[in-house]
Formats: sequence, C-alpha cells, structure tokens
Amino acid sequence: MEAGERIENALQRAVQRTTDETAPPKLAAAIHHAVFPGGARVRPRLTLAVASACGEADGDLVDGTATAIELLHCASLVHDDLPCFDDASIRRGQASVHAAFGTPIALLAGDALIVLAFDTLARSSGRSPHLLAPLITAIAQGAGAPTGIAAGQAWESEPNPPSVRYRLAKTGALFVAATMSGALASGADPTAWRSLGLRLGEAYQVADDLLDAVSAAADCDKPVGRDAILGRPNTVAELGVSGAMAHLEKLIDAAMDAIPPCQGEKELRDLVRLQALRLAPKHPAHQAA
Amino acid sequence: MEAGERIENALQRAVQRTTDETAPPKLAAAIHHAVFPGGARVRPRLTLAVASACGEADGDLVDGTATAIELLHCASLVHDDLPCFDDASIRRGQASVHAAFGTPIALLAGDALIVLAFDTLARSSGRSPHLLAPLITAIAQGAGAPTGIAAGQAWESEPNPPSVRYRLAKTGALFVAATMSGALASGADPTAWRSLGLRLGEAYQVADDLLDAVSAAADCDKPVGRDAILGRPNTVAELGVSGAMAHLEKLIDAAMDAIPPCQGEKELRDLVRLQALRLAPKHPAHQAA
Repeated sequence: MEAGERIENALQRAVQRTTDETAPPKLAAAIHHAVFPGGARVRPRLTLAVASACGEADGDLVDGTATAIELLHCASLVHDDLPCFDDASIRRGQASVHAAFGTPIALLAGDALIVLAFDTLARSSGRSPHLLAPLITAIAQGAGAPTGIAAGQAWESEPNPPSVRYRLAKTGALFVAATMSGALASGADPTAWRSLGLRLGEAYQVADDLLDAVSAAADCDKPVGRDAILGRPNTVAELGVSGAMAHLEKLIDAAMDAIPPCQGEKELRDLVRLQALRLAPKHPAHQAA
Repeated sequence: MEAGERIENALQRAVQRTTDETAPPKLAAAIHHAVFPGGARVRPRLTLAVASACGEADGDLVDGTATAIELLHCASLVHDDLPCFDDASIRRGQASVHAAFGTPIALLAGDALIVLAFDTLARSSGRSPHLLAPLITAIAQGAGAPTGIAAGQAWESEPNPPSVRYRLAKTGALFVAATMSGALASGADPTAWRSLGLRLGEAYQVADDLLDAVSAAADCDKPVGRDAILGRPNTVAELGVSGAMAHLEKLIDAAMDAIPPCQGEKELRDLVRLQALRLAPKHPAHQAA
C-alpha cells in the first residue's frame, strides 16, 4: 500500500474509535474536521520511511506510531489556531476548528486528540509490548514540556525566548520524534536518527518562515505575515528572502547527509528530496516583489 | 510510606521532569501551580488502595498509574476553569492557573500535563512492560473521547445531553479508570473493579452538586451556584438537599457493596468510608437555609 493511503487508513481507524455514535456529536465532528482532509502528512510519512529504512518488522506498531505523531500535530494546530494564540480562522483551506465549532469544542478536540494519540499507539503494540514505553517517551518529548510543542508555544509568552531552543521545541522536536520513533518502531537504535529529524525540522521551519513572509494568501493555508505581527523570530526577517532560500537548501543537503547507513537508504533519500521540493515556496522572489 | 506522602512524592518527581531549567519559566510555574498544592487526591488514593487490595507487586508501576490519573485530573481542572468554560478565577483556594498565568499558558499547561501523564506511566513500566498498553487504554477511556472527561465537558455544548452518559463521562469515567487501572497495575482482572469506580464517581458527582448548591463560598474551592447559572443537570435541583443527601448515602453503601473479594478488602472498605465522610458536605441543611 502507498504510504499516503496507509496513513489515511490508519488515521481513519483511530478517529473512528474516538468519534463513534456514543460521542458528543459536535466534538466528534470537530475531531474529524481537525484530522481530515489533512495537509501533506509530512511527519507520519517520515516515520513510515524511517521505519521502512530500518527494516520494519511490525506493521501495526509502525502504523500506530505514525498515527500518534500526526494526531499530536493535528492537536497542536487546533490549539495554535485558537483566539488566545494565532486567532486563525482558516486552516488547510477550510474553517479552522474553533471557527467552525467554537472555542470550547476546539479546545476539547485538541485534548481528545492528544489522548487518542497515546491510546492508538498503545493499541498497536500487541506484538511488540517492549517497544511501547520507549516510543511513548520519544513521542512525549516532541509534544509536551520541557522540549516539545507545548513548550515551543509557551516560549512565545516569554520576553526573550532563546532562539534555538524555541525553534527546536516549536517545530523540530516533533520531527525528531517522527524519525526516532520510526527507528524505535522497527527495533532500531533511535539515536542515529535524531540528526535527520533535527535538520528536517529546521528546514521545515525556514520554509514556513518563507511562506509566512512571501506567499500570497491564496497560495497559503494560513494568514500571511503573522510572525511579523506577533513579533516572532523569522529567518526571512533575519536573512532576507534569498538568504533564507539559500539557508533552506543548505539544511536540506545537511538532512540528506544525516541519513545513517541503513537498508532502505535510497528510498529514504528519494523521500527527503521529494518533501524538500514540496517545502520550498514556488517563485518566492516574484511573490516577495 | 503513607499513601498521601507516596502520591505527593511521585507527583513531584513527574512534575520536576517536565519543568526542569530548560522549560519556559511561565509554563513550568503554571504546571507546578496546577498540581501543587493538591486537593484531596481522591482518585490516586483510590488507585493505590485498589492496587494494594489486589496484592501490589510492582510499586513503580502503581506509582506511575496513580500519578497519571491525578495529572489528567489536574489538566482537566485547568482547562475547565478557562474563560471559555467555567471562567473560574479561584481553584483550591488560590488563583486558578489562567487567572495567575493567563489563558495561553493555562491551555498549554493542560496540554503538557496530559502528555506528562502518559509519559510518566510509560517510564514507570520497566518491570511490567506487558501491562503498559492495557493501562493506557483504561486511562484513556477516562480522559478522552467518546467516554472520558473531554467528552463529558463536550456534552455541555449539546442542546440535550443524555444525563447518564454526560455524568459518567464528566466524572465517573476517571473514577472507573482509577479503580480499573489500580487493579491492572497489580496484574489483576480490572472488570471486577469497574462497578466500584462507577458508584464512587456518581457519589462524588452528587457530593459536588450538594457543594455547588449549598456551600458558602468560603467553605468551597469553587464559585457556588455555577450549575444553576450554566443550566447543567444537578441532583440537588432534581431531589432537593435532603433527597440528594439520602441519595449520596445510598451510593456510598452501594460502593461498599461493589468491592470485590480481595486480600486487602478491609483496608479498602476503611478508605472508602473515610473518603465518603470527606465527600459529604458538613451541615448542608443549615447552609442551605
């Protein structure tokens, strides 16, 4: 099965379990809205690719791991879009969850997605119970505090956030969780995969900065110029558009170099190259004009 | 070690890990504020008592389980107190988390506590890896959707919430998780422990309704009369104060009867009786006058 289809199927199964006919209808609809239709599913694709490169042995566990990573990402988007943070009414080309269902339901949908992530992972671990605890810890480091998404967002409430730690927590940590958990789910040593996640996370952040700064609203799934309005660190503000583009290319090369020797190395390189092409904004110089 | 001390120590260790010197300072302070000082720690005490009654074999796992239950409870209080829900400025006699740290940090503190709950449980499972997955699923059923706290709160956004399912999700489900996970953590069959959790959860809800309706603000850790203002189901509104008190006593008797035969049955009965005494409001008739 193609990776994209595999991810959508696994997400459907997980969301179905939490939104069955016994669930409050608005919450169920909001959870569905938060997960489908998805974006590029970059993080779970990465998890699948690393798991495959490490000789995937337990397909259920790999599915559960990729699903957990994506559900945590979806939860973070729902909460980030809330009025008390970005106050974004559009996400992935449709109404954000709180715009469609109200703030209380959006907040609860995010909470339920976090719980569902860990439950889905647990339910997938039947053939590999010894891998569950290290997987949870690796994924929690990408999602919670002190190093994960919740911490990353919280740095924005501090007067002088440490730039490297802030960016790592906000974006990098879940990419690191995606690569390390992919390795772990295949029973491989995750430490060799940390660097790939770090570099891809950084590349993704720079690409997002470029999109934020230069894209026309029609080409982009979130309102433009938010970082400048909110006073956040932004690579384009620091390096300019062409400087940021050059930095992005360097980061993608560095990510390719960070792929450790493994049986699926070629396929993984192809995936990273493909994702990198999707990351780079089209015609940034033109759009910046 | 006495149960209360054991719970505080385990919570301290967990919170310390998520609020170390690398965490954003406001988030770290908010997480600490959300967990300490605690309330009666009713749910983790119940988990410890059931685990002990089932012949506790892995103390680390029992600590991790009780901690996860309490952290999820704390997370739910932080989110319930937010302006978009109860808008409560006081909790446990001090400022609520959002009143002290602002809504964005309170929201993130709740998220981080949910992640911490599962990570703490995972880290405690080293000697019993085969018990981790069923524990996570049992606890997730108390916290997420369709049956847990997130669903319970979401029912309040529906026009006609089904009364039994709403109350079960809002309060009962985490009590059920507390008893069933206590049994699971000792390697016992959790199904025999479901009924005790259900009945204690219902008793706790009735006691909370009594407190909500009759307590003076000074005796209570939350603003009074919120249910009436918010149009929520409330046993006192349905049965009156003396009717609700009689119902509470019946529920506590039913909870005692629901304790399955086990080696620590006597100690568990003593605990339930003690907690029941703490549940019942003092002089409700007088206060209602």
